[in-house]
Amino acid sequence: MIYFDNSATTKPYKEVIDSFVKVSTDYFGNPSSLHGIGGQAEKLLSQARHQVAQLLKVRAGEVYFTSGGTESNNLAIKGTALMYRNRGRHIITTSVEHASVKETMNQLSDLGFRITYLPVDQSGRISLLDLENAICHDTILVSIIHVNNEIGTIQPIEEIGKLLKEYPKILFHVDHVQGIGKVPLDFFQCRLDFCSISGHKFHGVKGTGVLYIREGVTISPLFSGGNQEWKQRSGTENVAGMVALAKALRMTMEQSENKLSDMATIKNFLIKELNSIEQIVLNTPEEHSAPHIINFSIRGVRGEVFVHALEEFGVYVSTTSACSSKKQAVSHTLLAMNVPKDLAEGSIRISLSFENTLEEATKVVNALKMAVQKLSEVLK
Amino acid sequence: MIYFDNSATTKPYKEVIDSFVKVSTDYFGNPSSLHGIGGQAEKLLSQARHQVAQLLKVRAGEVYFTSGGTESNNLAIKGTALMYRNRGRHIITTSVEHASVKETMNQLSDLGFRITYLPVDQSGRISLLDLENAICHDTILVSIIHVNNEIGTIQPIEEIGKLLKEYPKILFHVDHVQGIGKVPLDFFQCRLDFCSISGHKFHGVKGTGVLYIREGVTISPLFSGGNQEWKQRSGTENVAGMVALAKALRMTMEQSENKLSDMATIKNFLIKELNSIEQIVLNTPEEHSAPHIINFSIRGVRGEVFVHALEEFGVYVSTTSACSSKKQAVSHTLLAMNVPKDLAEGSIRISLSFENTLEEATKVVNALKMAVQKLSEVLK
Ligand SMILES: Cc1ncc(COP(=O)(O)O)c(C=O)c1O
Ligand SMILES: Cc1ncc(COP(=O)(O)O)c(C=O)c1O
Repeated sequence: MIYFDNSATTKPYKEVIDSFVKVSTDYFGNPSSLHGIGGQAEKLLSQARHQVAQLLKVRAGEVYFTSGGTESNNLAIKGTALMYRNRGRHIITTSVEHASVKETMNQLSDLGFRITYLPVDQSGRISLLDLENAICHDTILVSIIHVNNEIGTIQPIEEIGKLLKEYPKILFHVDHVQGIGKVPLDFFQCRLDFCSISGHKFHGVKGTGVLYIREGVTISPLFSGGNQEWKQRSGTENVAGMVALAKALRMTMEQSENKLSDMATIKNFLIKELNSIEQIVLNTPEEHSAPHIINFSIRGVRGEVFVHALEEFGVYVSTTSACSSKKQAVSHTLLAMNVPKDLAEGSIRISLSFENTLEEATKVVNALKMAVQKLSEVLK
Repeated sequence: MIYFDNSATTKPYKEVIDSFVKVSTDYFGNPSSLHGIGGQAEKLLSQARHQVAQLLKVRAGEVYFTSGGTESNNLAIKGTALMYRNRGRHIITTSVEHASVKETMNQLSDLGFRITYLPVDQSGRISLLDLENAICHDTILVSIIHVNNEIGTIQPIEEIGKLLKEYPKILFHVDHVQGIGKVPLDFFQCRLDFCSISGHKFHGVKGTGVLYIREGVTISPLFSGGNQEWKQRSGTENVAGMVALAKALRMTMEQSENKLSDMATIKNFLIKELNSIEQIVLNTPEEHSAPHIINFSIRGVRGEVFVHALEEFGVYVSTTSACSSKKQAVSHTLLAMNVPKDLAEGSIRISLSFENTLEEATKVVNALKMAVQKLSEVLK
């Protein structure tokens, strides 16, 4: 089995699961309990928070634990909308966001907020000029995806942050779920107020995430209750999950230091090989794209068909983001990039983790060639 | 160590953690992925859902997986408020809810909803007459805790449900987090529209919960995104956590069949012994109270002090709900029951699981007596 669908989810590291088990078994207390069993759990939670903070180069008090990327995105955006609705009701985002941002914007639009969806160029990037032109007197939030989950395009977050320094009242949220560990992001330099990451995308366990909230920023919580996480996110803390997330993040960051160039080598190899296959058109741009995502289309073949054809060779990839894959809707990211509809329908995403090897990539290329060949014959 | 703080959190069953590990390791796929690795995860998730449904005697399509009791409560209440705000803005609840309901109501009150908090009698119960009198033309939701987390009082859910049958437009939510497995609740008979449970309260892992949503009821989601959980709760599903929750629920329900009477025996023993200690006043009522929670006050001693005194004997209990315990606020439940403030400040909660034994209870009683003695001498 060759798993090249790491943007959908990753396999948790063994050490991460071991930590989860250890904490769940030996430190099962409720961090809010007054007694020692609670105190031990609280200490572990606090250590996990400090570890995450150090890895993200932020303060521990800026790390809010959540149940995943979807929650982090919803919390940042809805929490801001609800908190600052009297200051303004205009929000700016892009036309290439993950569903958890896109659908949140739709919901806010129904509630009377005005949403501007910035267009993108052929490589999937927004323009700073468009952003600047979109800013109104009542803009309260700009929410931009860092690395697009379907095609891997990197948005110019640092430049956007620089621009937004001139608008101190506008909050800035970045969906960093696909970027973390693969494409560096300096939260401070980029003037971020919020940043979302998700544990299961970097070999943590599912149901874990972080929302970075800059010190001094307050939002309206989605979960009210026992006032955990400085009142911004109540609920008994998933201590084991967060210790696991911290460990996964540490391991990922270490891998990132050592293996990013190997990943780039694999990506370049795959791109070269894909370019040599006549029926294939690359959608991932050459420049400003992440080292782990390659998106391409196969002329005349629907994505699902190709996913299943590859599966017969033991190769696992996807058509688009996992959560959209069953809806059979054409990728809104590719359409926003002006990829023709028939090509967009035949799109395939390969996504790597630091565990993948060049040897696997070679096998994938062979499988790809055989699958293309087979399907071309069928379709002739 | 004797852990009598099971209403704060429970120790996960070994089998539950084993399941979590197995799923996280061998079935790590994203249930939304088109390929077989995703398909296996989806199948497990669906099995877990069916198992939970069977145990709760509801339909699989009525089981929505969440990150815990706090999320389930917030989702039911805010989701209803947002969805039906044009039908009405009045909500009825009690004055003895868990913080995750109470604070949600406060938040909705700030947003312009009218909240009625039903008073309780000395045993902590609401009256049906008060409820009926509180119903207005624009009431959209009634939200009632089943088993109170601080004192164990059981609300008359079935009678409330019967009453609400006459008001088909009013939705009915029950916080069953403390009741599940201890005090039976027939969702259908009680005319429930929503019901919340939390995995870590019955030996599941933290960060897992269920919201039952009756077929045909739609709410406004807190998490928008990839449309998982029938669009009511987006986000990559915590498959391992939900399989673990299903297993914990099955084991708890089995224990419930065999061990409820043992639990009652332990509770009665503890109550008899507590009643024999002069300085102690019981807050938990004799009738209509759950088999696993006993709340009492010690005259002249603050709760925290007593928790720490017991800890020296290796006995772990709490003052109030875990999440309120560090706020040092006096229990709002006890105040609502008209317990005098000085007694409310000295309240202690003992909470049992099916794992606890009569032998442990005997040791706890001895520790209690010694701690009372010791503190009385200090305070003389
Ligand atoms: C860019 C992006 N944002 C947000 C999410 C949602 O995160 P989660 O799967 O943890 O809900 C995902 C993954 O699905 C993603 O790729
Ligand atoms: C009655 C009640 N409701 C809700 C909750 C919240 O559940 P969770 O701890 O899973 O957030 C709790 C426990 O804290 C509770 O006792």
